[in-house]
Amino acid sequence: MTAADPRAVVDLLGVLAYAELTAFDRLAEDARMAPTLDGRAALARMAAAEMDHHDRLAARLTELGADPATAMAPFVPALDGFHEGTRPRTWLEGLVKAYVGDGLAADFYREIAGSLPEPDRSLILDVLADTGHADFAVREVRAAIAAQQALAGRLALWGRRLVGEAISQSQAVIAEREGLVGLIVAGTGDLTGIARLVDRITAAHTERMRTLGLNP
Amino acid sequence: MTAADPRAVVDLLGVLAYAELTAFDRLAEDARMAPTLDGRAALARMAAAEMDHHDRLAARLTELGADPATAMAPFVPALDGFHEGTRPRTWLEGLVKAYVGDGLAADFYREIAGSLPEPDRSLILDVLADTGHADFAVREVRAAIAAQQALAGRLALWGRRLVGEAISQSQAVIAEREGLVGLIVAGTGDLTGIARLVDRITAAHTERMRTLGLNP
Repeated sequence: MTAADPRAVVDLLGVLAYAELTAFDRLAEDARMAPTLDGRAALARMAAAEMDHHDRLAARLTELGADPATAMAPFVPALDGFHEGTRPRTWLEGLVKAYVGDGLAADFYREIAGSLPEPDRSLILDVLADTGHADFAVREVRAAIAAQQALAGRLALWGRRLVGEAISQSQAVIAEREGLVGLIVAGTGDLTGIARLVDRITAAHTERMRTLGLNP
Repeated sequence: MTAADPRAVVDLLGVLAYAELTAFDRLAEDARMAPTLDGRAALARMAAAEMDHHDRLAARLTELGADPATAMAPFVPALDGFHEGTRPRTWLEGLVKAYVGDGLAADFYREIAGSLPEPDRSLILDVLADTGHADFAVREVRAAIAAQQALAGRLALWGRRLVGEAISQSQAVIAEREGLVGLIVAGTGDLTGIARLVDRITAAHTERMRTLGLNP
């Protein structure tokens, strides 16, 4: 494996560090919509896990001689824009967003990280691993749909809207930094490789919607 | 030391577990007012530390055969009322509240915990220990006052308002559960002891205001 462009690595760590900080923020906000104290504590706990991930990424940036705030800054508009555009209005919309939206984002970043040398590859795969959020969201959403079938249609629409916004967001993130495009090409090999990457991400998304009991 | 009333111990662990959950919530909300990404990450990191404390208290409640959500429930109105009544409008008000308000609350709960047997005594003293918040708040507030002296008067008023609300809150928490009064009496001995407790808490508060550079 050829050495990755060091600036691209800093970019990838920076966008992920900011993604974790916004994930913290969003989960903390959604926790307030929880119908029970147990649900609220569960979401707050997941938010805390995201901060732990953020700290590990920030520590690695510092180790590489980069300032975490500076590395995150270029990605603030794209990520804030995504969250502003997809603000959940209910507890269930928040859970679908966390499961479907974070799942998509994690798949995307995981594909980019695949071409990185160690220790960055393992660090990124590690912070992208699920923090128990998935099981919790799936359980709550399925139980809600079982109790009220009409929710399924509305939440499926919401899931589709999230994909649309996530695609725009990914394009904005890549457009921000050429180095990231280089990492994707390095990981996939060529244009056919990129098409296969999109297929893999789409298939995983379809699978997640089905797991929630929603029409993809 | 005589055995503490087991229901009073569950009450104390319950009010503290909910206090940590609201501390998480409030710090997460205040983080959004941070003027820099570094400040935002610092507050989010402290919020995450509060959730770790919450989890340890909830685990101890479960160990004692109590349901954490049930143990927290009686204290939700008093603590939510305090936070609704003292919602910071600025980043600096949030920091003063975190330092002065949490300091007062920690002193109060620490005094109650003093009469408990182990392992609860150490667990509570441990989760009440500062999570780095104090230094951060002191540094930021002092720097802001140095840059703009007029802030000192306004923030001092805010600090006094927090004390007033904190006293009402403590009374509401104690009024909720007789067992907690029993713990305070057990810890202080008699009415003279309670007067000394109030003196100690007041002196520590005055000291904190001075540390911030504010007139108590």
